[in-house]
Amino acid sequence: MKICLCQLLVKAGQPRENLQRMLGHVAQAKADGADLIIFPELSIPGYLIGDNWDYEAFLRECEACGKELISAARGIAIIFGNVAVDWQKVNRDGHVRKYNALFAAQEERLVAPEGGLYPYCIKTLQPNYREFDDSRYFFSTEMLALEQQETVENLLRPIKLELGGKAYNIGCFICEDGWSENYSYSPIELLCKREKLDFVVNISASPYTLGKNRKRHEIFAAHAQKTGVPLFYANQTGVQNNGKSVYAFDGSGAVYTKEGKLLAVSERFLEKLLYVKWPLEKEGTVPLAEEEPKVLYEALIYAMQHFIAQLGLKKVVIGISGGIDSAVAAALYVRVLGKENVLLVNMPSIYNSNLTKSASQKLAQNLGCAYAIVPIQEAVEHTIRQFENIAIAQNDSVFPAHLKIAPFVAENIQARDRSARILAGIAAAVGAVFSCNANKAEMTVGYSTLYGDLGGFLAVLGDVWKHQVYALAEYINAKVFGQEIIPRQIIEVVPSAELSAAQDVEKGMGDPLLYPYHDYLFASFMQCWQKAAPEDILRWYEDGILEEQIGCQKGLVKKYFPGAKEFIADLEHWWSLFSGMGVAKRIQAPPILAISGRAYGFDQREAQMRPYYTRQYLKLKERLLNE
Amino acid sequence: MKICLCQLLVKAGQPRENLQRMLGHVAQAKADGADLIIFPELSIPGYLIGDNWDYEAFLRECEACGKELISAARGIAIIFGNVAVDWQKVNRDGHVRKYNALFAAQEERLVAPEGGLYPYCIKTLQPNYREFDDSRYFFSTEMLALEQQETVENLLRPIKLELGGKAYNIGCFICEDGWSENYSYSPIELLCKREKLDFVVNISASPYTLGKNRKRHEIFAAHAQKTGVPLFYANQTGVQNNGKSVYAFDGSGAVYTKEGKLLAVSERFLEKLLYVKWPLEKEGTVPLAEEEPKVLYEALIYAMQHFIAQLGLKKVVIGISGGIDSAVAAALYVRVLGKENVLLVNMPSIYNSNLTKSASQKLAQNLGCAYAIVPIQEAVEHTIRQFENIAIAQNDSVFPAHLKIAPFVAENIQARDRSARILAGIAAAVGAVFSCNANKAEMTVGYSTLYGDLGGFLAVLGDVWKHQVYALAEYINAKVFGQEIIPRQIIEVVPSAELSAAQDVEKGMGDPLLYPYHDYLFASFMQCWQKAAPEDILRWYEDGILEEQIGCQKGLVKKYFPGAKEFIADLEHWWSLFSGMGVAKRIQAPPILAISGRAYGFDQREAQMRPYYTRQYLKLKERLLNE
Repeated sequence: MKICLCQLLVKAGQPRENLQRMLGHVAQAKADGADLIIFPELSIPGYLIGDNWDYEAFLRECEACGKELISAARGIAIIFGNVAVDWQKVNRDGHVRKYNALFAAQEERLVAPEGGLYPYCIKTLQPNYREFDDSRYFFSTEMLALEQQETVENLLRPIKLELGGKAYNIGCFICEDGWSENYSYSPIELLCKREKLDFVVNISASPYTLGKNRKRHEIFAAHAQKTGVPLFYANQTGVQNNGKSVYAFDGSGAVYTKEGKLLAVSERFLEKLLYVKWPLEKEGTVPLAEEEPKVLYEALIYAMQHFIAQLGLKKVVIGISGGIDSAVAAALYVRVLGKENVLLVNMPSIYNSNLTKSASQKLAQNLGCAYAIVPIQEAVEHTIRQFENIAIAQNDSVFPAHLKIAPFVAENIQARDRSARILAGIAAAVGAVFSCNANKAEMTVGYSTLYGDLGGFLAVLGDVWKHQVYALAEYINAKVFGQEIIPRQIIEVVPSAELSAAQDVEKGMGDPLLYPYHDYLFASFMQCWQKAAPEDILRWYEDGILEEQIGCQKGLVKKYFPGAKEFIADLEHWWSLFSGMGVAKRIQAPPILAISGRAYGFDQREAQMRPYYTRQYLKLKERLLNE
Repeated sequence: MKICLCQLLVKAGQPRENLQRMLGHVAQAKADGADLIIFPELSIPGYLIGDNWDYEAFLRECEACGKELISAARGIAIIFGNVAVDWQKVNRDGHVRKYNALFAAQEERLVAPEGGLYPYCIKTLQPNYREFDDSRYFFSTEMLALEQQETVENLLRPIKLELGGKAYNIGCFICEDGWSENYSYSPIELLCKREKLDFVVNISASPYTLGKNRKRHEIFAAHAQKTGVPLFYANQTGVQNNGKSVYAFDGSGAVYTKEGKLLAVSERFLEKLLYVKWPLEKEGTVPLAEEEPKVLYEALIYAMQHFIAQLGLKKVVIGISGGIDSAVAAALYVRVLGKENVLLVNMPSIYNSNLTKSASQKLAQNLGCAYAIVPIQEAVEHTIRQFENIAIAQNDSVFPAHLKIAPFVAENIQARDRSARILAGIAAAVGAVFSCNANKAEMTVGYSTLYGDLGGFLAVLGDVWKHQVYALAEYINAKVFGQEIIPRQIIEVVPSAELSAAQDVEKGMGDPLLYPYHDYLFASFMQCWQKAAPEDILRWYEDGILEEQIGCQKGLVKKYFPGAKEFIADLEHWWSLFSGMGVAKRIQAPPILAISGRAYGFDQREAQMRPYYTRQYLKLKERLLNE
């Protein structure tokens, strides 16, 4: 008996296309002698489709596609994920009842779990955290238990399939059902305790983030070992988004023996069929290494490829400043689209140094891309002149008759001129889009200009900290191109917006962000498992354990801040920006390629509020300042 | 015995400030002889605070504020909503266990429900639809029932308070617990059946949308009548947001007799104490009228006031085109900020007619605002000239050596010049923000330019259809100002972007949107209770019931579309924009003032996907085109 795990490339909201691909895989698996093919969760509709679950026409389409797949189960059994609709009942929002369901088919017919309420298995545990919104759309086995005044245990039923002439009793679960560590029970263990199962299947739609696979292998190996039942894990590939956040699905389908050994694993980020013979061998394999920056680079490239293809885009325009972020973005796009489809634009003002201008030129040369220099000085001066000549009819208002353009205002005029005037205009003229190169530290505190450098169709580095950007640059040179494609001076120049004389890189002056420290401080605000508020940061500072807690290099705090006064001023400055203006800017930021344990966008939901400091913080602060 | 319902103004994420206001109300209610004061749900932390629930320091602050309020319960009992934390347990995301809880206090001590698991009542039903995300943050009574292997019924416990010398048995519920129509049981009715209750309290954080109060009164009156137990409903006022969507909370606290009569109701959008004597009188009152456009106007003004105050803003810059949207926005801001704090800017190009230019001037005059004319022609021509002179180093790329600027590209250059260059620049120069005037029809199909007219700090009309904008204009003239403050020609001119000669309003040429029809078509796509996909629209069209189904005027379909071919072309054009580029633009749109039954933003979650047409649609289309 042979089982095929299909690492399906799922396109969100494209049931017919997904069905066609699934039918192809069924035929292939059958030709290859498989007795059973297992597709991932919600293979037909896709997972991240926003509120499109509200369209009944779409639900009927998914049902019809599911039926077609079922009738393809000839000489091979099929397990797949789809939305199931109970047209007689409602969800808790009053819309028609929908289940995130697992279907099994054999001999052109649906095989129902024995004694189940429905002819399919229903997801029991539904995640409602991070980027997940399951209970917004689906009614779970838990909700059914409450509705039917039944126990969850009694609603869990295995599915029996005849494979290679023998009957198999199969425990069928969906994604979160396996991630039960923070629930009061494990659906997999409940069922395994009650029933004698031959194997367990978990079908998933589990987005990739850095380090996630280690955790996945731990969890599913532990289930197999604890229950003594082998486990098959099938996950989607492809790229889906929920508006603000774009997620890559890595697949990484895997088989675990009853001893909890990883027997086989599919290559990540590949649509693929993985065949396993039954009974399972005992020899194990090892999980694919997930070392940064390699896996970060691979995930970014994969996500960009699919997201760009889905939007039907072929060309991109990138503003390159001679800094590290735009250089890395340019190299990534060259790998994704080919150098002939990337137009690099340098937009100097009087504040741009020869260093960064020549570095830009060199980068374009190294990458072999189309390149243009489009100076902004004249347009910016025209704007300032025009502003200073505006005659405002005052009408007893608070406004002056004439405007004075302060240096800070002029800085943002430059940033908007570059993006909203030049890049957006050129992109439209050549039928392309333009890239947003902001990194995660800038995203955190809104160190960027709305309608300026925060513009673009995708923030490819929006979930990548500055130190990771540097690591990517080195990796791109050493491993991807095997030569210094990103010029050394770009890696070595001090990070700077070059919007004023105070940001002169040739004098070593640049951003107010001290990345080796602030990258980690900001991660503690929003990315670390237990987020830190200023109260926590200040307590760690007082206790002398701050660097350890946030994970930055030792000695930096003393180096950057002579005393508590400076430390606190810095902390409050960035916390206020992070929780104030930063939020306002992120609301209008481009989609972000999500890759970390916590990305801005749908994974980090935010409200515009006044920044808040707790009483404990204020007490600590007073004590430290009066010491 | 006297009960006080407090329609508290809650500031999201500001526990100390909320506590101070609550302490003031407690003192006032006591002075006024009340025996019990009832505050709304989550009065201390606020409701829409995004993922700030993740900060343990914030949770400790809320707990401390709750304790302080409890110790203020001297000579008066207090019921209030707060977050409750069980530091020993975890939520399903692994973070510390949080409950959305109702606390009761008397004689400086917490009064626990008898025989309850916790010394407070916990929300049983948690909404996870529309703008609500309750299960993302809170563990519910339902989840407790599953965890404890108990029934929900047995976990529901009343609270006993001694009021005016007598003991009262009180059923305590939170918001959604009362909105149980789509659940398999009603927590209120469950408890009322088991216990002899004197009255029921429902504390809420329920955002206002048009028509919601009618539904609220129906639901809560029905509970009171069905159970025969009087019901007190306390709701928040103020304005809170979840990033993309800004919600006004109207209060509308109410008391229902055991016969289900509305006995008293608080004025909406006002922080207020409502006193009711016990035993309740039998005489009823009637709900406040909710007629559009009056209530729409009031809600917008209230939401703008509070949102703007929270951001610390005092001044606004508004681009006025001589069209209806910007005129209505200008009038609204004048009412909110005072005419002296509003700067109106008209930004003509060669395509702007004398009609709209003079209408703009007249509008500014009528409103008495500061006014400036800032032409864009020179800057736009500079940009086009500069673009056409760019030398692109081609490097065997797909890009041309020189750009040609097509008319469509030039249109968007104008739009971005107005917003990203002029309005953003002027706003920064005068320490103000600028307004986004896009209406909901434009939002739906992205009929607006990113970094152009889609820019701004708030889309005040982003949830208002074009026909509602017209109704607002008439209302503002007739009722708010009592004179023709919005000039008649602005109301009568054909809607137009005036970005090209093809949009010449003086020749009656304007937008491609046929608002009297498209307003309703678009509402059927996304706002109607049962959203319509193209398949539904086309079926209704075939059946001759489309106008009835979507609610537009009869005869429009025939008037606008000679036959099925034209009808289908129009439908596919707008559906593709709505579900394609429209989504991309909304991701980067400003926050929207949410006022309808379904607003873009957090209430309508979206993914960027390829527009989809079902098989049934394609069949129908084929049939209609071949008829």
